[in-house]
Amino acid sequence: MTQLRQEDVLSGALDLLDAEGLDALTMRRLAASLHVQAGALYWHFDCKRALVDAMADRLAADVGGPGTTGDGTWDEQLTELAMRLRRALLAHRDGARVVTETACAAGGANTLLVGRTSTELLIAAGFPPEQATWLTFALIHYVLGQTMGEQARAEFVARGEPRAAQTAAPSDEDDKNEAYRRLRASAQSADPDEQFAYALSVFLDGIKHRLP
Amino acid sequence: MTQLRQEDVLSGALDLLDAEGLDALTMRRLAASLHVQAGALYWHFDCKRALVDAMADRLAADVGGPGTTGDGTWDEQLTELAMRLRRALLAHRDGARVVTETACAAGGANTLLVGRTSTELLIAAGFPPEQATWLTFALIHYVLGQTMGEQARAEFVARGEPRAAQTAAPSDEDDKNEAYRRLRASAQSADPDEQFAYALSVFLDGIKHRLP
Repeated sequence: MTQLRQEDVLSGALDLLDAEGLDALTMRRLAASLHVQAGALYWHFDCKRALVDAMADRLAADVGGPGTTGDGTWDEQLTELAMRLRRALLAHRDGARVVTETACAAGGANTLLVGRTSTELLIAAGFPPEQATWLTFALIHYVLGQTMGEQARAEFVARGEPRAAQTAAPSDEDDKNEAYRRLRASAQSADPDEQFAYALSVFLDGIKHRLP
Repeated sequence: MTQLRQEDVLSGALDLLDAEGLDALTMRRLAASLHVQAGALYWHFDCKRALVDAMADRLAADVGGPGTTGDGTWDEQLTELAMRLRRALLAHRDGARVVTETACAAGGANTLLVGRTSTELLIAAGFPPEQATWLTFALIHYVLGQTMGEQARAEFVARGEPRAAQTAAPSDEDDKNEAYRRLRASAQSADPDEQFAYALSVFLDGIKHRLP
């Protein structure tokens, strides 16, 4: 048997992620899908969490870093960075969950580069380093939250699950709830890229407005 | 044996969540902690997902709805709503994950009320219904993403895990990476409430700027 490389484990893990989703990804299943003993995986990753950390960093590859965001103005580059991050998350099933559960805690080199790129853009625009870092966290967390919501909805639709049982709402509120349910369903069926671009541009407006 | 009520199951599930976290919450463990047979739980909830849906809706109780956001201007009320949602998520371990994995997909009455309250405020402020709904999704997803990041970091710190192995970054970039690592660590040790309030106010500025 040829030696199992870390890259092979990661590629196999991403394939399994796409096929089965994050909850179904286990070291045992991954070993089976790679036709190796579990011990061969543990040589590279101590546990599922270490594997998911590495998967998250692999997902974030080439999102940030020098030259990745074009040569537009700082806000155009920040928009491009957020779009690139979103595309990277959407490229794999449960991608946003994979990155969220690890990015804020540890973070490998690629995850670091995403934050660094955003923070450097904001500092160059004129923000103090602390505010630039806070806004970076907010931007990344918005991208993660929005994309996770979209992927959760996709999973839900794919499973064809019935709506959750509605617990009782005050009865004189029924009309308003029903009106909002219709609005929400209509918004959820709109193009998610368009929704994302709209909300991102609103957040960027807020950032521009705060420039010292 | 007295009959097990749905409320008892939910309360027991939230206790178990606080003690063990979302990943360790299983129907089997919950039955054991409540000193009942698993069948008694399945009478109320078909599976863990149905249980988590109900937990999410319980977490969102009293966050939105008539009269919950005070009598300030629409942007003050929207800020208050976001703060209330954040506090509700922080009240339970992994609270943000519990809500994120279900809120966008199904959503019970309380989750619905959070979105409805935000959307009604934005429509009253002057936004068309579609944009009001999109901004509501963005606001909720930002709160969820930011709070999830904070709770993920807390879990990470509590476990006392070592940093993830750094994969190789281009060597001429080392100084910049190290500078950003220090900035990030400093920002992560700052008051999370203050960071949240700052980024939220920036997003609200962007929303005000877009008022038709």
